Amino acid sequence: MIHFYLKTSTLALCASLISCTIENSSSAKLGVIAKQYQKNGDLIIDRAMSDFEGYERLGEMLDTFGHRLSGSSNLEKTLEWIIDTMKKDGLENVHGEEVMVPKWVRGREYARMSAPWGKDLAMLGLGGSVGTGGKELEGEVLVVSNFDELKERAKDAKGKIVLYNVPFTTYGKTVQYRYRGASEAAKVGAIASLVRSVGPYSMNTPHTGTSAYEDGVKKIPHAAITLEDAAMMGRMSRLGLKIKVTLYMEARSFGDVPSQNVMGEIRGSEYPDEVIVLGGHIDSWDVGQGAHDDGGGCVAAWHAVKLIKDLGLKPKRTIRAVMWTNEENGLRGGEAYRDNYINDLDNHILAMESDAGVFKPSGFGFTGSDEAFAILQDIGTLLTKIDSGVITKGGGGADIGPIMREGVPGMGLKVDGTRYFWYHHTAADTFDKIDKDEFNRCVATMAVMAYVVADMNDKLPR
Amino acid sequence: MIHFYLKTSTLALCASLISCTIENSSSAKLGVIAKQYQKNGDLIIDRAMSDFEGYERLGEMLDTFGHRLSGSSNLEKTLEWIIDTMKKDGLENVHGEEVMVPKWVRGREYARMSAPWGKDLAMLGLGGSVGTGGKELEGEVLVVSNFDELKERAKDAKGKIVLYNVPFTTYGKTVQYRYRGASEAAKVGAIASLVRSVGPYSMNTPHTGTSAYEDGVKKIPHAAITLEDAAMMGRMSRLGLKIKVTLYMEARSFGDVPSQNVMGEIRGSEYPDEVIVLGGHIDSWDVGQGAHDDGGGCVAAWHAVKLIKDLGLKPKRTIRAVMWTNEENGLRGGEAYRDNYINDLDNHILAMESDAGVFKPSGFGFTGSDEAFAILQDIGTLLTKIDSGVITKGGGGADIGPIMREGVPGMGLKVDGTRYFWYHHTAADTFDKIDKDEFNRCVATMAVMAYVVADMNDKLPR
Repeated sequence: MIHFYLKTSTLALCASLISCTIENSSSAKLGVIAKQYQKNGDLIIDRAMSDFEGYERLGEMLDTFGHRLSGSSNLEKTLEWIIDTMKKDGLENVHGEEVMVPKWVRGREYARMSAPWGKDLAMLGLGGSVGTGGKELEGEVLVVSNFDELKERAKDAKGKIVLYNVPFTTYGKTVQYRYRGASEAAKVGAIASLVRSVGPYSMNTPHTGTSAYEDGVKKIPHAAITLEDAAMMGRMSRLGLKIKVTLYMEARSFGDVPSQNVMGEIRGSEYPDEVIVLGGHIDSWDVGQGAHDDGGGCVAAWHAVKLIKDLGLKPKRTIRAVMWTNEENGLRGGEAYRDNYINDLDNHILAMESDAGVFKPSGFGFTGSDEAFAILQDIGTLLTKIDSGVITKGGGGADIGPIMREGVPGMGLKVDGTRYFWYHHTAADTFDKIDKDEFNRCVATMAVMAYVVADMNDKLPR
Repeated sequence: MIHFYLKTSTLALCASLISCTIENSSSAKLGVIAKQYQKNGDLIIDRAMSDFEGYERLGEMLDTFGHRLSGSSNLEKTLEWIIDTMKKDGLENVHGEEVMVPKWVRGREYARMSAPWGKDLAMLGLGGSVGTGGKELEGEVLVVSNFDELKERAKDAKGKIVLYNVPFTTYGKTVQYRYRGASEAAKVGAIASLVRSVGPYSMNTPHTGTSAYEDGVKKIPHAAITLEDAAMMGRMSRLGLKIKVTLYMEARSFGDVPSQNVMGEIRGSEYPDEVIVLGGHIDSWDVGQGAHDDGGGCVAAWHAVKLIKDLGLKPKRTIRAVMWTNEENGLRGGEAYRDNYINDLDNHILAMESDAGVFKPSGFGFTGSDEAFAILQDIGTLLTKIDSGVITKGGGGADIGPIMREGVPGMGLKVDGTRYFWYHHTAADTFDKIDKDEFNRCVATMAVMAYVVADMNDKLPR
């Protein structure tokens, strides 16, 4: 996913940061702390940029086990493989911690426009939606541009399929129609709701994602169609053409089933109880391969830790890679981690997450004290040579959100966001969209930051 | 479509032309003929660039009638509407000329990967393919990179589904796997064949297109899957994972049915029998809206003629807009036009086609005498102000190909080809992909060229 409140600002910032002027390596002025770590920082960067094991492992994982929705055997097989592989890597304290996660299954689904002319509609039911009760549901389509228009046209909506034809502006704004569109449509008597996929560009590519029903409101089927079809129906509606759509969805919720947060670490040589935690969410939607969202972030964080270990570096504090489960439709992994480590959070020095895709990184967004911010900026100077050392205020990640709210300083890897929402939650979020070099830059960036924070003499202040 | 032998070079040239340095309007040096037409040329350009009726009409046509495969009622409804609308426009000699066209119907179809994990595959059966005989066809997938590899691995192919995982290079090279892949696979005992969609970029977007069976070779089902899925299966194959796919296709051919070439004109004031013909192909594939391929080219050519009429210009020769039928899977329209006008072809002064999308135009590719080429270059100077006056040698179009082979000079509108093959033959070839301003530049470019050739004192020499 990418949580819509937290992440929108992060991504908006990304775009502007990419164009920042950054001193090149020859003229880079290292900070006070960075100076002490120049040798090891360079070592980490050089190794990360020339090592393709992480990239290849990501491909192997995605191709062998497939997409990883909570409750699926694909996800659990992936998690078992990660545990095995982390052990083979020689990471310490490798284990899984059980987390109960919701199981929603898409089942067979399709949509077809029958008027003004016949057309199969590429579609994806939205996570959590109910199905159509084992039968086709046919209705006339009422196209609206926003919730206000739906209210104004409330009496036209009765018995219809409401389509929210809302162009993408920011994720946070546009995703509202995906998230709560069904209940708003049900309140005015609609029999189903459709949403223009939440993304800025499409090649007939629908986007799924989570949705929710309001208590006490009738649950109606809720699905996404493509930008093209939504825009077309918007134009048809303006031309006065009657639009009819047939919808069939077997979507069903099955309650909670067990999954796990999986982790492995390098134990700190001097302060093993003090932890730098980094990772991503291992679950994905049930389409494509969940490559940028967030298989890439997971394997990049894992390989940042493996790389520090492989280089024989022995940081003073523990560095822990965590693959959180169920970020997409529950956030149960992040919450369980908080609950399991609630008594250790004072010793959680820093939490770091990568969940904006493994595109070219620019640095991190950080949420914590000004004193810590200054130190992280200092460390960031080590990354100037790969243009990824800019630390800005504000940022974190969905999975580390629960521990950040308990006071743990948090940071999110910031990357070029140009194409993230092209692929996000689509069947096009596949391994071929990952660039080797950009992936390695993400590994290098997280490894340098995690290593120095873990190894420096003073604890990162809160 | 875009014919693979003729068009590839056209598009390759497009890319290089876009970057040509063109004199800007203030310093443009007009040719001898152009100087006489500067006033009317400017009038046409100004009107074309400020008039959005053609663009809106294109949208109305696409949204009201849908995609337009030969043999479909959508196509015939569109043609009737064009006849009515051309008459309302006040064009002369508006009529249709019957053409028998092949009818192939896709029917319901789907593909699913069942191993190494379960995944619905976005797919499109290829035009002309047989179906799977009313049942699901399941097979192990043999992935090959080219025809040579298929021959080398011939004994592995027996009973399998062959996948040609061939990355896009040029359309002409890559389309071979779509066009004749089924028969090559059948020769080595495959039960079906799949092709990586013929395009350079995908967001899980399959491409259809025409295919053919070799006489005497068993006809097996032939379909396109996405770049993503083909690349993934290529990687799976290298990882040693067994891939299984289930294919279901109801595709069926129904023989020939009637369609028509539709045309309307401005009769020449002095030499009405001398004709400048321009147009595009009105049929499309049965997905998306056939917006760039070639609804846009058709309506742009039609509106180039309408605009000359609306401006009250009375060219000496006849200018005829033609919407050729069945370019995609038969070329029957272009051939019928040749046959119907075989005795008038000496009076066909110039044939012009737009079938590379209505992106930003750069000029024309021309096939004809050097003397004519020099005159057209001269006329092209009128288009310098909108950067669309570069005339290069070589070019034409599929529909005008039959009359060009009888000696009629021909030219193809050249446009920025960057994204043409992203959308080509996909469900993403929709009206939202048409840029208003670029569409109008296409109208202006064709209108100026057609008008001056029609009006100049001397006949364009052969």
